[in-house]
Amino acid sequence: MSISKNQLKLITSLSQKKYRQKHNLFIAEGVKVVNELLNSAFKVETLFCTDDFSCNISAEKIVQVSEIDLKKISSLKTPNKVLGLFKIPDEKELQNKGLILALDDINDPGNLGTIIRLCDWFGVSELICSTKTVDCYNQKVVQASMGSLTRIPIHYIDLEAYLSKTNLPTFIADMDGENVYKSSLPKEGILIMGNEANGISDEIKKLISNKISIPRFGETQETESLNVATATAILLSEFKRAF
Amino acid sequence: MSISKNQLKLITSLSQKKYRQKHNLFIAEGVKVVNELLNSAFKVETLFCTDDFSCNISAEKIVQVSEIDLKKISSLKTPNKVLGLFKIPDEKELQNKGLILALDDINDPGNLGTIIRLCDWFGVSELICSTKTVDCYNQKVVQASMGSLTRIPIHYIDLEAYLSKTNLPTFIADMDGENVYKSSLPKEGILIMGNEANGISDEIKKLISNKISIPRFGETQETESLNVATATAILLSEFKRAF
Repeated sequence: MSISKNQLKLITSLSQKKYRQKHNLFIAEGVKVVNELLNSAFKVETLFCTDDFSCNISAEKIVQVSEIDLKKISSLKTPNKVLGLFKIPDEKELQNKGLILALDDINDPGNLGTIIRLCDWFGVSELICSTKTVDCYNQKVVQASMGSLTRIPIHYIDLEAYLSKTNLPTFIADMDGENVYKSSLPKEGILIMGNEANGISDEIKKLISNKISIPRFGETQETESLNVATATAILLSEFKRAF
Repeated sequence: MSISKNQLKLITSLSQKKYRQKHNLFIAEGVKVVNELLNSAFKVETLFCTDDFSCNISAEKIVQVSEIDLKKISSLKTPNKVLGLFKIPDEKELQNKGLILALDDINDPGNLGTIIRLCDWFGVSELICSTKTVDCYNQKVVQASMGSLTRIPIHYIDLEAYLSKTNLPTFIADMDGENVYKSSLPKEGILIMGNEANGISDEIKKLISNKISIPRFGETQETESLNVATATAILLSEFKRAF
């Protein structure tokens, strides 16, 4: 059995968010990421795999393909045995407790994937994304998150409306903020990280109770900013190290 | 004046390390990165720019190009006014003091660029790269470093030979290491970060005096590792926050 024309068309269409939403499906590739998804609550629709990939799912969901066919449908430089179509799960209800990370319009899929992995590592309870943040089922996000996508509840909501109602303390990174190394950070709260080019939007800034800063140690003081994923890493580490 | 055939050939060749070394030149693109290089000790060879780019360098080094021509030579999705050829500077002498970061075969140019930016932010005194680490004049590294390349001394050396001789304390990240949040870290020392897929090589591990770990807070404990750039961010922050 090889890939049908309709399957090929479906796979190609899933690079676009509107078709992911229409079909309620997303793509994951490679042995590691696919196995993490198979071992999670996520539901598999179809697996396209070469004959050296082994797994325990029912035969009707498996399409055996040649390496040449896998290469045709893969967006990886080096396709790795399997490409899977998985169902996009329903969004869980927002719990609004613990340490929450909120993203104000993150654009880069690699950054979002890295941030999802960080949320998993640091036990962030929920990830809240503004509606303009890149889709977490974008294929590059799925690959960069390395399976952490299955362990972090992610919500796409109107961030401004949410922050205007929350009772949790809110934090943004700002060069004029309090030195994070000297701040007493709470166990529960919302850390908001901004867009790669524009930072936090003015509407969101108005709603924030605390500004914190990562001190800069370089002598020249010319480094303008840290990459958003590395800044998120440092700040999540600071929130967690006290507990 | 437009781009000559020879110039086009030169620019194309510089995507390969052997031609960068042969011509002793590298490429930087976009207003921000090019301006940071022009304002540094780095020497410009030629600037290819559209007529809305302004700078203070002598006319014979400038080639005015159309947006269409810039698009031809650019490797950015959205070319931004200028592509510059700069001379690769001579490597400075290794000072072997302060906080030093050493990289054991980092492969991904985006990771190296992000790490160079981190070194700049945290005042790392020198960056030491194993000879197999991706070239810091690779165009993707130059773009991701956002100008920090001009402020951090970078050395490509035999890492094993160097570490077998140094008197500074050495540190690697290892899940079996001491909790970094409870470690007393020195002001001077060498932090070594490993390859994205394979971590630190066995030869290097034998030479290391200290192992430190970033605690994992996620409930499931399934996250295998942090991305090397985010782990570097957290560890450099820990080395610096005490001082």
